Amino acid sequence: MAVYPGTFDPVTLGHEAIVRRALPLFDRIVVAIGQNIRKVDSYFPLEERLAMLREVFAPYPQVSVKHYTGLTTDFCRQCGARFILRGLRSSADFGYERNIAQANNTLDPEIETVFLISSPGLSNINSSIVRDIHRNGGPIAAFLPQAIRYRFPAR
Amino acid sequence: MAVYPGTFDPVTLGHEAIVRRALPLFDRIVVAIGQNIRKVDSYFPLEERLAMLREVFAPYPQVSVKHYTGLTTDFCRQCGARFILRGLRSSADFGYERNIAQANNTLDPEIETVFLISSPGLSNINSSIVRDIHRNGGPIAAFLPQAIRYRFPAR
Amino acid sequence: MAVYPGTFDPVTLGHEAIVRRALPLFDRIVVAIGQNIRKVDSYFPLEERLAMLREVFAPYPQVSVKHYTGLTTDFCRQCGARFILRGLRSSADFGYERNIAQANNTLDPEIETVFLISSPGLSNINSSIVRDIHRNGGPIAAFLPQAIRYRFPAR
Amino acid sequence: MAVYPGTFDPVTLGHEAIVRRALPLFDRIVVAIGQNIRKVDSYFPLEERLAMLREVFAPYPQVSVKHYTGLTTDFCRQCGARFILRGLRSSADFGYERNIAQANNTLDPEIETVFLISSPGLSNINSSIVRDIHRNGGPIAAFLPQAIRYRFPAR
Amino acid sequence: MAVYPGTFDPVTLGHEAIVRRALPLFDRIVVAIGQNIRKVDSYFPLEERLAMLREVFAPYPQVSVKHYTGLTTDFCRQCGARFILRGLRSSADFGYERNIAQANNTLDPEIETVFLISSPGLSNINSSIVRDIHRNGGPIAAFLPQAIRYRFPAR
Amino acid sequence: MAVYPGTFDPVTLGHEAIVRRALPLFDRIVVAIGQNIRKVDSYFPLEERLAMLREVFAPYPQVSVKHYTGLTTDFCRQCGARFILRGLRSSADFGYERNIAQANNTLDPEIETVFLISSPGLSNINSSIVRDIHRNGGPIAAFLPQAIRYRFPAR
Repeated sequence: MAVYPGTFDPVTLGHEAIVRRALPLFDRIVVAIGQNIRKVDSYFPLEERLAMLREVFAPYPQVSVKHYTGLTTDFCRQCGARFILRGLRSSADFGYERNIAQANNTLDPEIETVFLISSPGLSNINSSIVRDIHRNGGPIAAFLPQAIRYRFPAR
Repeated sequence: MAVYPGTFDPVTLGHEAIVRRALPLFDRIVVAIGQNIRKVDSYFPLEERLAMLREVFAPYPQVSVKHYTGLTTDFCRQCGARFILRGLRSSADFGYERNIAQANNTLDPEIETVFLISSPGLSNINSSIVRDIHRNGGPIAAFLPQAIRYRFPAR
Repeated sequence: MAVYPGTFDPVTLGHEAIVRRALPLFDRIVVAIGQNIRKVDSYFPLEERLAMLREVFAPYPQVSVKHYTGLTTDFCRQCGARFILRGLRSSADFGYERNIAQANNTLDPEIETVFLISSPGLSNINSSIVRDIHRNGGPIAAFLPQAIRYRFPAR
Repeated sequence: MAVYPGTFDPVTLGHEAIVRRALPLFDRIVVAIGQNIRKVDSYFPLEERLAMLREVFAPYPQVSVKHYTGLTTDFCRQCGARFILRGLRSSADFGYERNIAQANNTLDPEIETVFLISSPGLSNINSSIVRDIHRNGGPIAAFLPQAIRYRFPAR
Repeated sequence: MAVYPGTFDPVTLGHEAIVRRALPLFDRIVVAIGQNIRKVDSYFPLEERLAMLREVFAPYPQVSVKHYTGLTTDFCRQCGARFILRGLRSSADFGYERNIAQANNTLDPEIETVFLISSPGLSNINSSIVRDIHRNGGPIAAFLPQAIRYRFPAR
Repeated sequence: MAVYPGTFDPVTLGHEAIVRRALPLFDRIVVAIGQNIRKVDSYFPLEERLAMLREVFAPYPQVSVKHYTGLTTDFCRQCGARFILRGLRSSADFGYERNIAQANNTLDPEIETVFLISSPGLSNINSSIVRDIHRNGGPIAAFLPQAIRYRFPAR
């Protein structure tokens, strides 16, 4: 079992692809919104982010959607998950993800982080840019999974 | 025609050089302050940033200075510009600029972003560091275009 | 006018896209194979590389295909080109391209290098990997422009 | 089942740790020397590299050691492996590994590459540096798995 | 004499190692908390950060602990220090540190920044991650110098 | 005392600046050509590289020029040097230099590598590009220290 933690603010085509590609690797994947990390306010409220994740991953019985507070490693323990799943898009991601993964391994040496590299056409999709476009009134459906595009109709 | 978007908070020697080097490439360049991107407050007020840009680019009849709200691609459409101009200073810049350029291309596939790499002596100049120096009472003239240095007299 | 220099060993979908996207920027683009750079033997012979480039760019009357020895900046002078065109795929490319562009600018300060960033789905395509696959008997058509795929039939 | 391909010239503490950490993820791991990739001569002969790998991984019944010629994806097919395992040490590794992983995914879309990031104390260990030290008569045991250190006695 | 500036919020094993390794290079090292840089609130109050630094570096008579406001280069002048000491953990650090070092050199050309690269086992330790763990109620002692671990007892 | 090792094939303005900036840090600097590293042939013969280094550093009585075979750490021991001096130009350099520095520290834990970051105008100068220009008949004087430019007269 793996936990795929993130803020998913909002979930993108990139996140969906990472989960779909990881399905053959894990019997179960918990997509989990970690709250209050760095105390930055989210753009979409927690309930909306959870609802979007549930719509996106509804077709996959192996996948469940949760949220948690506190340490990711503690949440993994509670779930009984030995693996954390993360996507890598770029060498800039790498440095950040490396530090988080190694800190998690220090906190709980039995938990291992497993990485998939984003597919070529998706490595540029970034929740932060999606939020900027939305904030400026732009259309974001092209960056989102099919299942939730209806929520963001074109202008 | 190209739009050169940024916050220009403040305009530096680096920005001036990018515009000057791009002049042979475009019949007209619109240097444009994008407002409210990521909702972060600017350090210098919009009016002061516009005034500085106008002084810096006054010698270049091909260059105009504007500001906009909303999406950069929408502003390009309004201007009739097919190109966005950006400078690249470092490999850290690269990751960020790539994501923005590709998102803009998704929003409007007819708009292309064109990059120049900063000249060797200017690649370290960064508006954020200039602001930090100014905030701490330090002299910033050495980082700014000649035309606006009088605004920031030495201590 | 711009020169797009490279070894094109072989030309890929990535190279084709850079030229096509740069067409609105330049009245004419010379795709030019630079020979003997670093004295490394090429994998495909010069004649075959030229023939492939000519097939790929035949539909574009603005594009011509040439080869040269000596400095790229000297070749630009001979062509009457003020611009060098290059694609950037990754932050690793950035460091290398920056050094070359700045050296060319030192050799001839009137020549400017203009960069486009590879499209999302093409940033992973790399002539060196294509050669490795071909050397190991693998199918390379998926990485190549449509016009030359017939040269490399599937296994 | 996963294939862990490499040149292992020689196998280091870093390689050993990647395999050990991946054991909970895969029922079986095939550590496989790919031959003649890029036609560069190896430093240690194939037989010696295989012998070292076999000594290092002898304690792990899940792990087997093989060698292959041709494409890594073809070798995976022959083994019946759907996963390729690779370690990531640095952001420089990232760019290279991304291109290889995506090319392999193009060659065989059912094969997925899974990455672990090197442990903090091992991210600097690099077969190429180990070879340089050995070539210059230096001691390399500190960089190698315990099981093969006896082969390289201190000076 | 060198100044080792930072926010030390909190001091980590990584900071301690940089100072210890730099001792043979400088007759005296001033570990100095720069206040209000970028006006971001600190996590641990100044007095607590100073107290932790004093405990960590008490065994080293060459090392003193200070704090300052204003420019780092002005503080160096006041101390009579010609060198700034900084650690480099990753290529992401590199870009940021390069810009700061070159800006400081522009502000005061007699001041040189000297870098040590973090030791392999410490390159992943990062005050920002330590703060995140603490904020989420996790144990941080493993990331801190021995002398101050008693302040953060295990859960 | 510090050893500044390299191939210096040829010495550039970048190397000269690193040594000059490091003079206040060390009582003596040994600029040392390491031979046969990676068994790659040099472009300029050893005698010519030594002669160029001696001309460049003749004005500095603290600086001596040597060459060595074998491990850099062994050469440092022979010289009685506890420090290795290296310049960092870019984040690409960082990864390579980190691995070498950490391997040297493993080989001899008393030897520390100290880094200076290249000055803004010199970070793009690279012996490999200088060689490429020379090989193609181009002028290289602009990249070289004043003292040896007479050796490479303009075309």
